[in-house]
Amino acid sequence: MDITSERRLDDGILEREFTLGEIPGTLWTSGSEPAPLILVAHNNGLPRREPRLVARARHSASHGYAVATIDAPGCGDRPRSAAAEQARADLRRAMKAGEPVDEIFESLVGPLVDDAVPEWRTALDALLELPEISGPVGYSGWTALGIRLAVADPRIAAAGLFAGGYVPRAVREEARQMTVPLLFLLQWDDEGNPRQRALDLFDAFGSKEKTLHANPGGHLGTPAFESEDGSRFYDRHLR
Amino acid sequence: MDITSERRLDDGILEREFTLGEIPGTLWTSGSEPAPLILVAHNNGLPRREPRLVARARHSASHGYAVATIDAPGCGDRPRSAAAEQARADLRRAMKAGEPVDEIFESLVGPLVDDAVPEWRTALDALLELPEISGPVGYSGWTALGIRLAVADPRIAAAGLFAGGYVPRAVREEARQMTVPLLFLLQWDDEGNPRQRALDLFDAFGSKEKTLHANPGGHLGTPAFESEDGSRFYDRHLR
Repeated sequence: MDITSERRLDDGILEREFTLGEIPGTLWTSGSEPAPLILVAHNNGLPRREPRLVARARHSASHGYAVATIDAPGCGDRPRSAAAEQARADLRRAMKAGEPVDEIFESLVGPLVDDAVPEWRTALDALLELPEISGPVGYSGWTALGIRLAVADPRIAAAGLFAGGYVPRAVREEARQMTVPLLFLLQWDDEGNPRQRALDLFDAFGSKEKTLHANPGGHLGTPAFESEDGSRFYDRHLR
Repeated sequence: MDITSERRLDDGILEREFTLGEIPGTLWTSGSEPAPLILVAHNNGLPRREPRLVARARHSASHGYAVATIDAPGCGDRPRSAAAEQARADLRRAMKAGEPVDEIFESLVGPLVDDAVPEWRTALDALLELPEISGPVGYSGWTALGIRLAVADPRIAAAGLFAGGYVPRAVREEARQMTVPLLFLLQWDDEGNPRQRALDLFDAFGSKEKTLHANPGGHLGTPAFESEDGSRFYDRHLR
């Protein structure tokens, strides 16, 4: 892992940019004790510099966690595949025309998840070697990636999933294999995330401890108190 | 209000039994400062001495709230009406026979709610005159009573509702008129509370701030951390 830059933010958090081969990432830490780690990812591969992701990451860092994110293939500044660009164009056209979008989402999001998981695991290998990170490891964010990662990697000890965006069929099937405690956060009127599909997914999760939090409003309307609830969820399972 | 007995519990909480005319009640307080009040009620009129209700009440009292409950008409030691006794017998018979129970619940729970609301308001009048209670007032528990009470009485500032038991049709309609912040706690596999009906009720609540918390398991399986989440909900709205 190469640290390419670092700066101290005004709330005292240390923000470091790193690369791992082709993978660019960011690590936020506070305090001097080795800390549990939270991996923060964004629905459908939005860039890791997206302000809402950064705000969530800094919130968790201010609660004493080491927090890391990467731009997986096709995310942020990384080159997008021709197939993904085509799928995005198809998606815009279909949405404008009011046509069904499930198959297009499948062709866009399925490969994004497939390609992201090995790189997140590579990042996790490297992060857990840092002296400032003690584990255990939590996951926060993009539901589809979180399911695949928690099922594939036994180092993930708790998952906070945000029910935004499309979950590919294969990943929905894997939800039954999840065993880690999870907090599933749903916006009741999320325009991009049909409510019944999210409730069915919550029902399918195999985890014995799973909690659904739902609030009214659209995709961007999550109330601020849910950040605090999220911190307490991680505190229960990562401390 | 006549205080009929009092005792200091081992966690320092003062538990006082009172009567208000025919209405028996219990008040739990801790500390010496005037405190906000939480009214705690039980689904379908179970007795106020029921251990789970007492545990919830003491939990809130230990967080600095004054907590009160009453036995409304037909609850606890108070005489049951012949109609309610008949409805309970009909209910047992119908459940055993696997017959529909909606109409029987309607005839049992409808009058229980109708009769309870004026007595809870009488109790609220008296409780708010005590120097140890400053308001504002929260409500916790029985969903059907909580809806009716929050819609009828502007002194209720926040409602934590447990989706257990049958909500009469008239009360379900009133849910749209609710405006106070609410936390709606659902057991995902509650044998006595059809999930879809609870989700429809959550959807119907008129309150701008409404949060659903759902956890797997039956009616009695609510995880302990939900008590803490409940306290933080009240802290946001009653402090």
